[in-house]
Amino acid sequence: MKSFILSVSCPDQPGIVARITGLLYEAGCNILALEQHVEDGELFFMRIEADIVESRWPLGELRRRLGELAGNLKAEFALTDRDIRPRLGVLVSQQAACLYELLTKQRAGELATDIRIVIGNHDTLRPVAESFNVAFEHVPSGPGDDHEAVMLKLLAAAEVDLVVLARYMRILSGDFVAAYANRMINIHHGFLPAFKGSNAYRQAWERGVKVIGATAHFVTADLDEGPIIAQAVTPVTHQHSVAAMTVAGRDLEKRVLAEAVKAAVESRIILHGRRTVVFHP
Amino acid sequence: MKSFILSVSCPDQPGIVARITGLLYEAGCNILALEQHVEDGELFFMRIEADIVESRWPLGELRRRLGELAGNLKAEFALTDRDIRPRLGVLVSQQAACLYELLTKQRAGELATDIRIVIGNHDTLRPVAESFNVAFEHVPSGPGDDHEAVMLKLLAAAEVDLVVLARYMRILSGDFVAAYANRMINIHHGFLPAFKGSNAYRQAWERGVKVIGATAHFVTADLDEGPIIAQAVTPVTHQHSVAAMTVAGRDLEKRVLAEAVKAAVESRIILHGRRTVVFHP
Amino acid sequence: MKSFILSVSCPDQPGIVARITGLLYEAGCNILALEQHVEDGELFFMRIEADIVESRWPLGELRRRLGELAGNLKAEFALTDRDIRPRLGVLVSQQAACLYELLTKQRAGELATDIRIVIGNHDTLRPVAESFNVAFEHVPSGPGDDHEAVMLKLLAAAEVDLVVLARYMRILSGDFVAAYANRMINIHHGFLPAFKGSNAYRQAWERGVKVIGATAHFVTADLDEGPIIAQAVTPVTHQHSVAAMTVAGRDLEKRVLAEAVKAAVESRIILHGRRTVVFHP
Amino acid sequence: MKSFILSVSCPDQPGIVARITGLLYEAGCNILALEQHVEDGELFFMRIEADIVESRWPLGELRRRLGELAGNLKAEFALTDRDIRPRLGVLVSQQAACLYELLTKQRAGELATDIRIVIGNHDTLRPVAESFNVAFEHVPSGPGDDHEAVMLKLLAAAEVDLVVLARYMRILSGDFVAAYANRMINIHHGFLPAFKGSNAYRQAWERGVKVIGATAHFVTADLDEGPIIAQAVTPVTHQHSVAAMTVAGRDLEKRVLAEAVKAAVESRIILHGRRTVVFHP
Repeated sequence: MKSFILSVSCPDQPGIVARITGLLYEAGCNILALEQHVEDGELFFMRIEADIVESRWPLGELRRRLGELAGNLKAEFALTDRDIRPRLGVLVSQQAACLYELLTKQRAGELATDIRIVIGNHDTLRPVAESFNVAFEHVPSGPGDDHEAVMLKLLAAAEVDLVVLARYMRILSGDFVAAYANRMINIHHGFLPAFKGSNAYRQAWERGVKVIGATAHFVTADLDEGPIIAQAVTPVTHQHSVAAMTVAGRDLEKRVLAEAVKAAVESRIILHGRRTVVFHP
Repeated sequence: MKSFILSVSCPDQPGIVARITGLLYEAGCNILALEQHVEDGELFFMRIEADIVESRWPLGELRRRLGELAGNLKAEFALTDRDIRPRLGVLVSQQAACLYELLTKQRAGELATDIRIVIGNHDTLRPVAESFNVAFEHVPSGPGDDHEAVMLKLLAAAEVDLVVLARYMRILSGDFVAAYANRMINIHHGFLPAFKGSNAYRQAWERGVKVIGATAHFVTADLDEGPIIAQAVTPVTHQHSVAAMTVAGRDLEKRVLAEAVKAAVESRIILHGRRTVVFHP
Repeated sequence: MKSFILSVSCPDQPGIVARITGLLYEAGCNILALEQHVEDGELFFMRIEADIVESRWPLGELRRRLGELAGNLKAEFALTDRDIRPRLGVLVSQQAACLYELLTKQRAGELATDIRIVIGNHDTLRPVAESFNVAFEHVPSGPGDDHEAVMLKLLAAAEVDLVVLARYMRILSGDFVAAYANRMINIHHGFLPAFKGSNAYRQAWERGVKVIGATAHFVTADLDEGPIIAQAVTPVTHQHSVAAMTVAGRDLEKRVLAEAVKAAVESRIILHGRRTVVFHP
Repeated sequence: MKSFILSVSCPDQPGIVARITGLLYEAGCNILALEQHVEDGELFFMRIEADIVESRWPLGELRRRLGELAGNLKAEFALTDRDIRPRLGVLVSQQAACLYELLTKQRAGELATDIRIVIGNHDTLRPVAESFNVAFEHVPSGPGDDHEAVMLKLLAAAEVDLVVLARYMRILSGDFVAAYANRMINIHHGFLPAFKGSNAYRQAWERGVKVIGATAHFVTADLDEGPIIAQAVTPVTHQHSVAAMTVAGRDLEKRVLAEAVKAAVESRIILHGRRTVVFHP
């Protein structure tokens, strides 16, 4: 490991930054980026990107000392190798926009991830995945949970770190959600918490809102209630029909989903309760 | 009357524009601006600004012929003299930002209205109103409805066309609302329909949204459910405390309230059901 | 022809709307959308979408009468069949984002156009075009103008109505530009008129701006001086390196180019001088 | 001093954060907020807000040790007492919007500053300043520089830390600018670097841009070339006349000026060359 990301969550207390950065300095690490946040005067969060310039200690020693310090601070530490790209599994139905956005950004070097598998409950988007040399599996949704078992097996075989629901139009069971707790991101086509559930654009049209939005969030058992990672909005007028809102919203959806996935693969998100800390890129 | 605004609502049918603009042409009127909207293929809305260039008919004749045409089209017509400025009554509590916004824009010539009276349930903003030479009345909110009777009397005496709740922090009774049905605008400090009621910013903080908003809407008996006129939003991050959201939101509130009041005084709003048509300025 | 778009430009004068809509009403046409604009009190512009409901006259007669009226109003009329999709030729270099945006939106039914040919001065994007079943031609840029002659021949053979420069990184000669005058759209990676020429993001970084933008414009002989069709912007901070601005800008570029192309293929643009009237979708 | 802001600029090198936060920890300070930025891999900037919790050393000792460390790091340090509010002098002409924005935000507790004096080259805005109990001086602009000498004397007497040009419509001499180098902020009514000089909205209209902006910047001898602090933009269409752009722009101007002044009074700006680091609020 030559370069890492260190994420920290702990109760706020004096000396946190000094003690952690002091340890890294002693270990011969050079900090490239550091961002910290104190929530409500009580909780401390920090993200550090650092290079191991002079490797004064073996990696095990660095981990041991960080673990010791974490204990003293009552902190949770997460250490991620910057050179290992997280592996993605993407679930889709028939809408192509979000999938294209992820694939083109990945290929353009904007998403440091490895897209291992695309699973569709329709076969429609197979050519899209395959034109990017990404494996596609068609797993039709059944009335029971059998298709979920198949998908879990495929995702496990692909050793996926993060699951992305890129306009996958089926509800997943609590068991499926639990298998990827805090590691599954959905894009909702509404400005949550308004307009939950399906037909968000019709709901928005009927309510006569003047701004529509899209929301990327972690998936929890409670549908559309998961912690929000990113949101984007665009103004609409009385001239927008439901169809026009849907088209305008599609642009938001793909943009905001890519933004959330980018934050996740760059280890920039810390979850606590229903809130997320999303550090700057 | 030298110049007018004509608003039209009717079932969609062939020839509406031709027949109305034909009549105005015949009457010697010159159209300055015309905007139309067909909703869902069924309802037709139009707004025309026109000058009476050569007064070929007496005004009564123009009105009579428009009324006749309205009958044929099963339309509702509203004819407004552009040179008569609507009269405003503003209700406030202690927050100054919205009131300043309305007063400064009115004075700068951006709001073609006559602000006749400001009523506060606190006396705090009296110097603000008075520094703009606008009458201020202090009507403390009581437990009963007596203060509403006082306010209705004051508003009636000031011959107010439009009532603006500029962060007036009290709920008004159904009777009060009915007295100014479709003529009373409120600013809500949340992105409706999310975060109804009070403490919208705290609700937003707890839900962890990444965008906050403000909503100007007509006041109906059903609180925070009135037809939306204008909304504005601004991005927030985990770094925004409730207090920081409140400050950021205050800028949205004043902006969006002024936008909605401007639309109202320029007769650019047509209400139908819970939706509004807001024609361009 | 069952459905058409009528564009009108003429000196402002009384009765324009009445006379044109009166003629259409007489002809048995039903207006679906009408938008008009008076510029500086002098120039009148209008766009009408209409269905021919009852074909009372042969199409030739409608054209003849419209021509006659145009003569009386000293107007330029353009009548476009709504069911004929304009044909596009797209010029690219190596950047894929804009090309994908056009192809995916076209396939999703959001761009009512027929993409006939993609020409690249590199062969890089051939697989992209071909995965959408669009012809791709590789025409390397030479030091002379020979490659332009080849491209003009290819575009002519494909009967292209509109040429789109989707991050085509070469300057075209005046002759090439003249061949597609008012029918060629470029995307510039800066907020024109600031940051003309190449390296717009580096220029922006050095000037330390806090907002970056992208501009879609008609191509004229004078580089980066053509009439602007659409612009979009996004905030940046000191944290954005040139590379980060480039990535953020790429999202703007594809969005704003697609918006401009959509306006063009829907006959929503009227050019006059250096300004454009872009009617609402 | 109970609470301070420490700003740091230095060449990037290992251990900066560790050494500075280590020193503060040793001194008994508790860090409330810390933000750092590395520019182009070469320059390091940091801003720390801290409380002196246990005053282990006299203030002089803290300053001495920080000075010593600054020497070692070849750094510039600036230590600001958070409880001392910077003093503002505001220069105006006849437009009220920006002045009202500063005064109302200051009074609402959103701008931690002390507005000591307003100087107008017209007497128009005297009542505005006086209604907020702020001293107003009328210093008409002459053909020579006498009025500048008067203004400098007034600003010096008021012990002003920061001068704000709130739509002051006169050019100031190089000497005046030098007297408040890096301490004078102007609001320009255009999206710099486009549309320099006067009549920015007319220039924008003629160029046919689809977005307009406003720019707050430090004033340098080279007009409209000073380092940018904040910018904001709003979309416009062909329907915006120069007058409509002016009104829309006024809202931007006051917003972006207040944002820049807020950053300055909270010591969140570090200048280097033509670029500014503006730390988050």
